[in-house]
Amino acid sequence: MRIELTLVGMGTGNPQHITQEGVQALRAADVILLPRKGEEKAALAAARLEVCRQVWPQGDGPRWAWFDMPYRHAASTTDAYRAEVQRWHDAIAQAWRDALCAALPQGGRVAMLVWGDPSIYDSTLRIAQRLAQRVPMTTRVVPGVSALQALAAAHAIALTEVSAPLLVTSARWLRENGWPEGIQTLAVMLDGEGVFQALSAPDVYIWWGAYLGMPQQLLCAGPLAAVGADIAALRRQARQQHGWIMDTYLLQRRMPNAPQE
Amino acid sequence: MRIELTLVGMGTGNPQHITQEGVQALRAADVILLPRKGEEKAALAAARLEVCRQVWPQGDGPRWAWFDMPYRHAASTTDAYRAEVQRWHDAIAQAWRDALCAALPQGGRVAMLVWGDPSIYDSTLRIAQRLAQRVPMTTRVVPGVSALQALAAAHAIALTEVSAPLLVTSARWLRENGWPEGIQTLAVMLDGEGVFQALSAPDVYIWWGAYLGMPQQLLCAGPLAAVGADIAALRRQARQQHGWIMDTYLLQRRMPNAPQE
Repeated sequence: MRIELTLVGMGTGNPQHITQEGVQALRAADVILLPRKGEEKAALAAARLEVCRQVWPQGDGPRWAWFDMPYRHAASTTDAYRAEVQRWHDAIAQAWRDALCAALPQGGRVAMLVWGDPSIYDSTLRIAQRLAQRVPMTTRVVPGVSALQALAAAHAIALTEVSAPLLVTSARWLRENGWPEGIQTLAVMLDGEGVFQALSAPDVYIWWGAYLGMPQQLLCAGPLAAVGADIAALRRQARQQHGWIMDTYLLQRRMPNAPQE
Repeated sequence: MRIELTLVGMGTGNPQHITQEGVQALRAADVILLPRKGEEKAALAAARLEVCRQVWPQGDGPRWAWFDMPYRHAASTTDAYRAEVQRWHDAIAQAWRDALCAALPQGGRVAMLVWGDPSIYDSTLRIAQRLAQRVPMTTRVVPGVSALQALAAAHAIALTEVSAPLLVTSARWLRENGWPEGIQTLAVMLDGEGVFQALSAPDVYIWWGAYLGMPQQLLCAGPLAAVGADIAALRRQARQQHGWIMDTYLLQRRMPNAPQE
């Protein structure tokens, strides 16, 4: 049994985010490996199926290999969080192995749809490394549109000023480490708690987006001091209405001597 | 005359990087706005035409609006560089306006193919803002695969460690400011000079790629102290062979107390 695994970045819920390379990788696969439930929200599962409907418009494919997504426990400290993530990734790799042994006992080509891009705050590659300790395999990655790019596109803004840096960070890291000196622009992901609300400096601007690329997309932008509370309220309402939320935002601080472009 | 401009991220030279959304935006356009020469290398122009050949396989479209790319002068200091960039963007906006007035005197839908993603170290959005001061218009952005994502995909690596930040930076900023404290991972773009060669700490790892997504793609990875000189030699040879080079790289420094994942 030998597995050729292709991880396909699917974008952020707009089925048209998929690239031509992604379409071809899906069509070339013997099975599509899909999570059945757990942390996988129904709307996200529906988005994966919608991509497949677009790739196989005649309803003539593909073969599915479903696996039950193991549960990830909450952790308060960063160390406990990291340890729990390790355990969880091992459990997922085992679930993949079981599903693939059943679906492809002789091995073959497997494709997986990965939300956003497989290289940005996504664990699928790390889980694939663990699978490779259990099954002979190769891994190929097809890049896709990340939430950051969908955010920038929706606001029609650049993420980077001319030659200046961009710090892409998790909300967890930002909360623990604060805004690094000398860096003007932050892109914040995985913020379950609204960390931006603790950063209300008068010179900070925010571009926020939720459900990026989806029909229920929400956008808000403005000086953080003016719109921060509105965004927090929008998030609460939207999470209540839809039962889940995925959002991300860009923060920009004007440096004292920055040129006004 | 009213212009509806759509900037389509085209990926990094692999015509299959284009998304379904990008294909539809190109097909819906009245004209495609294209640079004729200047800093635009022949290989990059060919990549744009290859995307269009894929979008119109019957050779039945599109209409082109060509403009001559103004020349950008070299600048040694960051201030001089910024001033020259401002002047250059103004000149490009004027060239766009002239080409569009000729091609669409009544206005209409215009699409442009943007290398990589329009939000990451790309000036097209800023030039569009200048065009908007000259012509009534709207701007829409279709995200695409950036060089960073193509790099990560080619190496099958993640750009971000669990909950840790990623600094996306120009080589110019890194050279002037150095590696910021507390940040483990840097993605470096726009490096014409090989700034990585000045960073040869013993604990730094590099993943490098050139011509990402193209048939002539080059990859190299390893401890910077061991492979830095090889990469510098590869760059020189490749630039000589092809007449141009576009490359990018990820640097990762192990922090003293970092968990080994």
